Amino acid sequence: MLDPWTADAFDYDKIVKKFGIKNFQEELLKIKNPNRLMRRGVILGHRDFNKITNLINKNEPFAVVTGMMPSGQMHIGHKMVVDQLIWYQENGGRLSLPIADLEAYAARGISFEKGKELAINEYLTNYIALGLNIDHDVNIYLQSQNQILQDLSFRASMKTNFSEMKAIYGFTPSTNLAHLTAPISQVADILIPQVEEYGGPINTVVPVGIDQDPHLRLTRDITNKLHEELGFLTPSSTYHRFITGLTGGKMSSSKPKTAIYLNEETKNAVKKLKSAKTGGRESLQEQKELGGKPDECVIFETLVYHLMDDDEKLKEIKEECLNGTLLCGDCKNRTCQLLEEFLDDLHEKQIESREIAQTIFD
Amino acid sequence: MLDPWTADAFDYDKIVKKFGIKNFQEELLKIKNPNRLMRRGVILGHRDFNKITNLINKNEPFAVVTGMMPSGQMHIGHKMVVDQLIWYQENGGRLSLPIADLEAYAARGISFEKGKELAINEYLTNYIALGLNIDHDVNIYLQSQNQILQDLSFRASMKTNFSEMKAIYGFTPSTNLAHLTAPISQVADILIPQVEEYGGPINTVVPVGIDQDPHLRLTRDITNKLHEELGFLTPSSTYHRFITGLTGGKMSSSKPKTAIYLNEETKNAVKKLKSAKTGGRESLQEQKELGGKPDECVIFETLVYHLMDDDEKLKEIKEECLNGTLLCGDCKNRTCQLLEEFLDDLHEKQIESREIAQTIFD
Repeated sequence: MLDPWTADAFDYDKIVKKFGIKNFQEELLKIKNPNRLMRRGVILGHRDFNKITNLINKNEPFAVVTGMMPSGQMHIGHKMVVDQLIWYQENGGRLSLPIADLEAYAARGISFEKGKELAINEYLTNYIALGLNIDHDVNIYLQSQNQILQDLSFRASMKTNFSEMKAIYGFTPSTNLAHLTAPISQVADILIPQVEEYGGPINTVVPVGIDQDPHLRLTRDITNKLHEELGFLTPSSTYHRFITGLTGGKMSSSKPKTAIYLNEETKNAVKKLKSAKTGGRESLQEQKELGGKPDECVIFETLVYHLMDDDEKLKEIKEECLNGTLLCGDCKNRTCQLLEEFLDDLHEKQIESREIAQTIFD
Repeated sequence: MLDPWTADAFDYDKIVKKFGIKNFQEELLKIKNPNRLMRRGVILGHRDFNKITNLINKNEPFAVVTGMMPSGQMHIGHKMVVDQLIWYQENGGRLSLPIADLEAYAARGISFEKGKELAINEYLTNYIALGLNIDHDVNIYLQSQNQILQDLSFRASMKTNFSEMKAIYGFTPSTNLAHLTAPISQVADILIPQVEEYGGPINTVVPVGIDQDPHLRLTRDITNKLHEELGFLTPSSTYHRFITGLTGGKMSSSKPKTAIYLNEETKNAVKKLKSAKTGGRESLQEQKELGGKPDECVIFETLVYHLMDDDEKLKEIKEECLNGTLLCGDCKNRTCQLLEEFLDDLHEKQIESREIAQTIFD
């Protein structure tokens, strides 16, 4: 059972096989200008992404949905989603960005007022500072304030039942009803670009972490059932790996030692990255002889996911690590330097971005 | 299984026994000035009404909840609820009147806009015209617009599960989730007078038709589970019989021949009542010999429920019917006369009442 709540460690290959997710590598060849995360295998699987590739290649419109749950702070791992949104935007995607304040309330007890404040000052501010153009065909909404969403949730909830929720999420007859029905608002979020008010049926892609696939399976099934009355098209999806936390496990907003926050003081962030888990060997001697293990290295991953744009240079670094000529100290220093530049720049941009973000719901 | 959706014919005694509802007759003796529906056995059962009797007798506050579903037209049967509300208001009850626009949308596809319009121009207008004082400690709200209700629904839905819904309503694993979760907003409606924002825990009575008892059972169970964290008190309830339709079955808004609408032209209504099913015998001769059957007579029921305030006079009519001296023609003429007076008066009052109703949500 793959579920979006307890997901922690993943055997990616097994999951991809078991649930019929397609490997992204084959699709990659057809994409004219794949983004960094696609090229580097961070995006590892998809469902029906070929529909989106075709639309991009023909310059035809499509929708992109990915939600933000306003709870806690944004960390550098969340940047992955924003990078993808920017890419989709450059390639003709209409963005739909639900703010999951209903879910934040349900799962974390965060009031709608607090959720809205976090969405503006934490999430949207950073989305804009990271480069998202919110004036260009972007629909940002609060779940709790969106009547169309509530109508759609209701229609979706008519098309599923306890049996299906049990099969997909492993719910039991004693699962409380709040938990049992929580996925329905996500289904509605995914389908909302297709309602008449927003332009009617449109192919949609949902770029998410692989733990979110159950929501896609549910949505795809409900979409098929709604097709006849509403003409909705089955959504496509892509699945990315999780970013590793600084201490080796999953990066988590609620565990400061594992995460680099986007609003964190640069000094502090650099200090944390400096003591992050690397792929280095036990001794300098051993490292020089055997080379490092970049695929198990948080520092290298930070370069791959976020800080190193140049594929060639990244390849060089990997080779130098593998052959033992690049040692962890130097590599860390360089990466920390890049992080410092990235964060200083971001913090500067946050000032203006916050002002823009604060006008979104006016 | 007693469920609120398919209820049609009732063996009242059996239901009262099976579900542990108490007979109202014993309670009646303790009530100082019981209303017409109590005195005449239209209210046949209750749960924990003794708590409310005690509060009334001690002049202490309590809450009263009863919802209106804004779908279609109000008929004379709905007047029963208003009569009870007025009585409770006179006896110190704080009224809470949810407008079930969520349910109207769910069950009948009525948009929130249309629901609001119906609530104002059809329901609230008539509530006021029938004598309800909406300025006196009355909380009227639209389910869809009430954030506190949505929060409470969420909290309530955390305290129940599929097993319980199955036990109470007979739901199966293939019941759609919209139907499965619909009762939750009714639970929240019943509990809302007890939230902090409305003054905190308070004894509450819910006067409803007996088909609504499953909602009370669910609410009582959830209340017990919420008691520790929120201090909520278990609600009391009373159960009334259904009014018989003009053609003999259930009176239904959607079947014009069965119902007298409150907004209907008096002439039209009188015409329908004139051809209603009576408790008369096959022939005049037989009727004179055996007497009529007032307990199976729609005309007599209309007097009992709505048109005849004077208990003594009502008793006389019954006796005259039973002993064959009062014949159906005369009895019908008198009742139609009373209906005409009632409706003409009501229609006049509706004009001003509508103006008041239209200010409620300003």
